[in-house]
Amino acid sequence: MLRYFIEFSYNGKNYFGYQIQPKDISVQEELERALSTILQEKIKTTGAGRTDTGVHAKKMFAHFETNQVLNNQLTHKLNSFLPSDISIKRIFEVKDDFHARFDATFRTYEYYISLEKNSFTQDSAWQHWRKPLDINKMNEACKILFEYEDFTSFAKLHTDNKTNLCKMYKAEWEQNGTELKFTVSANRFLRNMVRAIVGTMVEVGSGKIQPEDVRKVIEDKNRSSAGTSAPAHALYLVDVGYKFD
Amino acid sequence: MLRYFIEFSYNGKNYFGYQIQPKDISVQEELERALSTILQEKIKTTGAGRTDTGVHAKKMFAHFETNQVLNNQLTHKLNSFLPSDISIKRIFEVKDDFHARFDATFRTYEYYISLEKNSFTQDSAWQHWRKPLDINKMNEACKILFEYEDFTSFAKLHTDNKTNLCKMYKAEWEQNGTELKFTVSANRFLRNMVRAIVGTMVEVGSGKIQPEDVRKVIEDKNRSSAGTSAPAHALYLVDVGYKFD
Repeated sequence: MLRYFIEFSYNGKNYFGYQIQPKDISVQEELERALSTILQEKIKTTGAGRTDTGVHAKKMFAHFETNQVLNNQLTHKLNSFLPSDISIKRIFEVKDDFHARFDATFRTYEYYISLEKNSFTQDSAWQHWRKPLDINKMNEACKILFEYEDFTSFAKLHTDNKTNLCKMYKAEWEQNGTELKFTVSANRFLRNMVRAIVGTMVEVGSGKIQPEDVRKVIEDKNRSSAGTSAPAHALYLVDVGYKFD
Repeated sequence: MLRYFIEFSYNGKNYFGYQIQPKDISVQEELERALSTILQEKIKTTGAGRTDTGVHAKKMFAHFETNQVLNNQLTHKLNSFLPSDISIKRIFEVKDDFHARFDATFRTYEYYISLEKNSFTQDSAWQHWRKPLDINKMNEACKILFEYEDFTSFAKLHTDNKTNLCKMYKAEWEQNGTELKFTVSANRFLRNMVRAIVGTMVEVGSGKIQPEDVRKVIEDKNRSSAGTSAPAHALYLVDVGYKFD
């Protein structure tokens, strides 16, 4: 069997998350249907991870196997077959044990907040213009994240994760005009973790808690200590790291 | 009476154009309802122009009159009252005969085309990735526009315009990565004109007609000589020029 990687993006608005489910529509289901139809054999994919309902991906990977030799025309055929909210970037062969999930060395997410009412980013950024946010305090709080590895406080309860340990590589807010962008990178993320971190950061930015309070939030190892999850529609998976050679 | 200008933007996706209509929902109707409710008097507005069903505006102006002295808090109140797809930028007093439509010296539109399937610009750019476009030829065709003033060929039939004369100030395609942006500026535009120009330009870019053929299209003074209208969802009114002093 040949193993292929597929790089793609999707607008998560109309999906109940990335991962295939018995009832609700998912990105993975659409992807496997397209691959199976065009290749005329049953194709199963393994994704780099999963994203929740409504969350987007600008760069996502999955792997699949087939005996067929594939070329780049498949990208165009898949894009024609798939709905407009899933776009294939490229398909390329990898070593036959290279794994989209286990060989990923990091994941990077971005979260967008609009500080001004913006009618063009309603579906892509959190419209947070009613109250100001102090980005400096939010960045102070970011620094505290690097002192910890156990992020139980930011994890959804009752998941099947064996550990709640993550290595944080980057966590930073940047302001561009009236838009805030949060970039966060780690070896792995727990379910709901980025949105829980953003929700907590926004509590810091709006003065509800102080940057130093984030220390206690993390040490509590209790989801209810952290802030409410930020809305899903403003969260993007933007990169997954691999060493292909 | 005091006369005020209001600067705002809107996402046209859910509206049957800017101008108020008996049956269908319009941006102007929402705007007048918000102003009338908050100011507690019947407010009528006069817009800088009108945009068609589905067309957006990043910068639009209207004027209205009231005896109330208004301040900037009204902007925030209106933004809270209005739906998320209409955003007020500012409200400021002007001379009592300054007119949003008649005192506008130019209008500028932008039109976006994606040359690659892009799941994040489905609602904001024309997804034109199945066939390549030659931007150089499209820009050659742009130059021909400046030789003419009668744009009957790009005007919707049976409108109440007295003349079809326009002074073209700018018409240019720019490529940024896989995105094309067309910027067009003129003293006035006829109904449907930008989308008819874009549709014709895309026929040039895809090789269906040659740049020089645009000359004949214009000289025919016949709408059926021009290309099919480009989709509305990728068109933005981006500026209206005034000399406020």
